[in-house]
Amino acid sequence: MTWVILEDVSLRDGLQFEQKFLPLEEKLILFHLLVNAGLKRLQVGSFVHPELIPQTADTDEFVRVIKDEYPDILVTALVLNGKGLERARDCQMSHLTMSISASDSHSRRNVNRPSLEALTDMIELVKSAVDSGIQVRVGIQCAFGCVYEGAISEDKIVEMASRLAESGAVELNLADTTGMGHPMQVKRLVKRVIHAVPGRSISLHLHDTRGLGIANMMAGYEAGVEIFDVSAGGLGGCPFVLGASGNVPTEDAVNLFDQSGVHTGIDIEVLCKVVDRYEELLGRLLPGRMNRVIKAQNGFCP
Amino acid sequence: MTWVILEDVSLRDGLQFEQKFLPLEEKLILFHLLVNAGLKRLQVGSFVHPELIPQTADTDEFVRVIKDEYPDILVTALVLNGKGLERARDCQMSHLTMSISASDSHSRRNVNRPSLEALTDMIELVKSAVDSGIQVRVGIQCAFGCVYEGAISEDKIVEMASRLAESGAVELNLADTTGMGHPMQVKRLVKRVIHAVPGRSISLHLHDTRGLGIANMMAGYEAGVEIFDVSAGGLGGCPFVLGASGNVPTEDAVNLFDQSGVHTGIDIEVLCKVVDRYEELLGRLLPGRMNRVIKAQNGFCP
Repeated sequence: MTWVILEDVSLRDGLQFEQKFLPLEEKLILFHLLVNAGLKRLQVGSFVHPELIPQTADTDEFVRVIKDEYPDILVTALVLNGKGLERARDCQMSHLTMSISASDSHSRRNVNRPSLEALTDMIELVKSAVDSGIQVRVGIQCAFGCVYEGAISEDKIVEMASRLAESGAVELNLADTTGMGHPMQVKRLVKRVIHAVPGRSISLHLHDTRGLGIANMMAGYEAGVEIFDVSAGGLGGCPFVLGASGNVPTEDAVNLFDQSGVHTGIDIEVLCKVVDRYEELLGRLLPGRMNRVIKAQNGFCP
Repeated sequence: MTWVILEDVSLRDGLQFEQKFLPLEEKLILFHLLVNAGLKRLQVGSFVHPELIPQTADTDEFVRVIKDEYPDILVTALVLNGKGLERARDCQMSHLTMSISASDSHSRRNVNRPSLEALTDMIELVKSAVDSGIQVRVGIQCAFGCVYEGAISEDKIVEMASRLAESGAVELNLADTTGMGHPMQVKRLVKRVIHAVPGRSISLHLHDTRGLGIANMMAGYEAGVEIFDVSAGGLGGCPFVLGASGNVPTEDAVNLFDQSGVHTGIDIEVLCKVVDRYEELLGRLLPGRMNRVIKAQNGFCP
């Protein structure tokens, strides 16, 4: 494999906890710039209750505006229940991202029931979307550990992935929600899940909370993963840890793969202009490294 | 291999470009705290001209104070020429770190001659130290690339390592001075150098400029490296790139290896108190992640 697909989630996961509200027009500009940089998959919003995530309340309108304009781009959005699926159908979405937690504690906090009970509902939701001709990927949260429960059984992850694949999900996304994953674990679990769901794609959503995001990405690549979630500038992730970044910065992932001779189709210099725009809009520097390095160019010490 | 040795370089590489001058008493406290956390190897200063690096002008005094107090700790310092070696001998140092660049441009900037010419002098310096019963490690700077020259020939690195090993260096340290190394390259070059210098140790000094420090560390470990340079809090590295951290934070490396089941002998919670002290002394947060994560404990979002 000499290529990978990077899915930028900055417009959804990146913005969802930001205090500053970006208007639709601005998000459309950011989307356009990301596509210009070479991104082919973008997670642009959530079909969830506007009170839960006000930042993505404009998702319906957003996808209607861009739907026909970008036929080559995979545009996806988060759906968590039947109401969200209805909205997504009304918007004629062809791809959706769903999410379930492998941690019982986390699952109870989110949907008031343990994960295997939540799985039953999720399977119905996946089937319903698939019956409408929608491609579905399901993210399994806390796949590499949970701050409440510690380690999560790998057998449980494999079982959840298998059942979701059987129900029609085309892609299983293993999410390191807490940033507790480490490279050896990523390799081991990814290989097990790939083996358990033949014919399905496996993707990774890695948080950099403990500084292991890029190392885990490399481990995932070595284990056979071809699709990775990233976020321009490293925007998003967990907002409650001071100084901790969340998602792997898109530009740092592009550099990793560029250096490794693995094709992403993304122009890092064009991409960094989008990071600039995010930084200007949000009024702070984002944690990604390559935007700084490219600006410093030869001005830094060897 | 289920253990690694982490050499903390915060007192030397970490402090050398800091504006704020730390007095000897404070450095001794920091050293003591690092040893308490479990560090067994520390690079504490430089025997270079005080005008070049004023921060380490007290190295002679520092090592005299601690020399007999810590018999189990490997205390090392940087030496770049014969005058420095004389001072180190006067201080009865038993281990020294020397340094040469594999990049001709970088070497010319540092010692006014290309690297293979500088190698001739370095070999004499190594021999002279070894003849005095001093163990020597030599760092090969820009081993993974140079901002002026781009890629550096791997054959050249292997040749330099071989000749330094023949001259008596017990350890070759491959330094990613510019942070341009990437995991596949680290694995490939480390394996070649290990093969070329049987009976010598190979260590890695990795900069996190492009966010690949930890990923490169894991790659080095997988390729057989047992000794890694780290710096508490991620202090040090290149001060001229805004927002770019330099050295791999000791606490983040400890977490990586703890999670991977690899023994470091270091207690991360005790270590983070040293990071706190550095942050207080220098008046800013350092880039390491684990100090933040440990403080946030269960207060952060899963």
